[in-house]
Amino acid sequence: MSKIAVKPITFPGPYLIFLGDLKDRVNAKTGQGLADWRPEMCLGQLRLDGCTIDLGLPDMDISLAAREGVRSMVIGIAPVGGGIKEEWIEVFAECLKAGINIVNGLHTQLADIPTLSASATLGNAQIYHVRTPPSDLLVGTGRKRSGKRVLMVGTDCGVGKKYSALCIHRALQERGISATFRATGQTGIMIAGSGIPIDSIVVDFVTGAAELLSPDNEADHWDVIEGQGALHHPGYGAVSLGLMYGSQPDAIVLCHEATRTRVDGFPGYHIGDLTARIEEALLFASKTNPNVFCAGISVNTSWLEGESTEDYLAKLEKVTGLPCVDPMRGDLDLLLDRLLEGK
Amino acid sequence: MSKIAVKPITFPGPYLIFLGDLKDRVNAKTGQGLADWRPEMCLGQLRLDGCTIDLGLPDMDISLAAREGVRSMVIGIAPVGGGIKEEWIEVFAECLKAGINIVNGLHTQLADIPTLSASATLGNAQIYHVRTPPSDLLVGTGRKRSGKRVLMVGTDCGVGKKYSALCIHRALQERGISATFRATGQTGIMIAGSGIPIDSIVVDFVTGAAELLSPDNEADHWDVIEGQGALHHPGYGAVSLGLMYGSQPDAIVLCHEATRTRVDGFPGYHIGDLTARIEEALLFASKTNPNVFCAGISVNTSWLEGESTEDYLAKLEKVTGLPCVDPMRGDLDLLLDRLLEGK
Repeated sequence: MSKIAVKPITFPGPYLIFLGDLKDRVNAKTGQGLADWRPEMCLGQLRLDGCTIDLGLPDMDISLAAREGVRSMVIGIAPVGGGIKEEWIEVFAECLKAGINIVNGLHTQLADIPTLSASATLGNAQIYHVRTPPSDLLVGTGRKRSGKRVLMVGTDCGVGKKYSALCIHRALQERGISATFRATGQTGIMIAGSGIPIDSIVVDFVTGAAELLSPDNEADHWDVIEGQGALHHPGYGAVSLGLMYGSQPDAIVLCHEATRTRVDGFPGYHIGDLTARIEEALLFASKTNPNVFCAGISVNTSWLEGESTEDYLAKLEKVTGLPCVDPMRGDLDLLLDRLLEGK
Repeated sequence: MSKIAVKPITFPGPYLIFLGDLKDRVNAKTGQGLADWRPEMCLGQLRLDGCTIDLGLPDMDISLAAREGVRSMVIGIAPVGGGIKEEWIEVFAECLKAGINIVNGLHTQLADIPTLSASATLGNAQIYHVRTPPSDLLVGTGRKRSGKRVLMVGTDCGVGKKYSALCIHRALQERGISATFRATGQTGIMIAGSGIPIDSIVVDFVTGAAELLSPDNEADHWDVIEGQGALHHPGYGAVSLGLMYGSQPDAIVLCHEATRTRVDGFPGYHIGDLTARIEEALLFASKTNPNVFCAGISVNTSWLEGESTEDYLAKLEKVTGLPCVDPMRGDLDLLLDRLLEGK
């Protein structure tokens, strides 16, 4: 079966971040992520009456954004319930008519709203829905690809896989090494401006999607791949395994949240011993890349109490024999050394 | 999130098997499977001019089938290219108008053909598409369910997982044990009259679908679950893992084709040592059922050459210490004993 090559979702910058009338910082996570990780791409923020969140970006309305060269307005908020307010629609319509694309991570398909599809046509603008995977995906082939790949492997959901990948990506670039952050979830895709929402793929095609996400590359180029779920996770294990097989990682980094002992929201399921989790991950990763190794452990120590980050990491290093780091607090030198030396 | 309970695809018997103008026995696999495994449900076959296949069932046209009480006509063929011939449409329309449902395993969605959707309305008949999974599935919960489950675990695709499950199911029933065959692929679903096409599910919901497939049951009831793919398969591993996690098997049966050493169609991928494959499978199955064990190995020895089935199985038993059987050639007593004793 020959097909035209399918591509990950990709949308153009620079961006305007839409914050609506948001009052709750937690729900501004995506906008905050963009401002933190892609400041050079964020020209401004659009805040409606009543918005109390400030990402520290210049305030812009649509006409100013158009003059400044904004290419896409990113809906950087996840309102409670996921709904869209009536007054937002007007702003979205004005945006599309001005030729600025909209990047949508909400559940609502904006293109299904007639005013907005008409406005998009008028302005020759696109509506990107980052929860919708590319269509016409193929089954994974298992074919070895050129270039290097490191995959974040979680001990649970929400332990810091995305931030670990972003930190490792930045640290590699700071060393002058060619690297790309490969996003597999909606927030990551918004930050990267490209990616595949790996958990939305039909399971038959999930390894194929992961193969597509990190294509052949220069021999010394690193793809730093955002992980999803956890291999032992009773709900999301298949997502993690499909991503792992298709990624064919040369190296993995175990990502963990220091205080987490149980799988969040799944009573009776424990994370258990980190060394055992690494061994399992390597056993399975070796199916599509026999030379895979673990470069280290990336720990989110934000919620640690009664023990310092340094003590926790030193103890973990002793037990595992691997570089252990909180990438938001310490430097990644030892982990990167091990990664680049090939263990 | 509370939802109405989602159900597997289920369609009513007895059946008429539609063979069209088929000339090639390989493409009558589904019809043959039904005639072999559900003879009591197959009242007849419908053959058009030119058909050279005979399942040994009474020939019937639609009006006779209606008089005989047929509830569903199963399209028991997979023509090359998967297409539908113009002359079939007339038969399908007549069938639906007569109030007989159609069970479709072809890629074409028959309900999209206006004549057929109109005929279905007229006859108050359903068109079941066994490749389309139920909608509104939920993420797996990992909650322990009552009843017993045995899952077929393959060393590759096409090694005999469906037939192994059907044989084990039949042998359990012959011992007077309450058991249900749980189908996970389209042919299995047609044979069982119910099931979920597990490889068509969005990966986030695959464990949830597998949980739905084998619900709570009597403590001594066995679900015999058709496997999919292979855990180490570079294309389909995620399908296998999601099915395994959601099935929470009490026991697994490794299914193997005696002459297969490589993963079919995936150059460079080997099946390797069967004991290692069992250990890996148990390692992962133990994530959602810590007491899981391997009840034995089910081997398709049809293509064995230069060695007798008996010699092959005796050798494998010696190496693995497990009951090894070709379920289409020998009896399943030792495997069943081990299964029922809880190892």
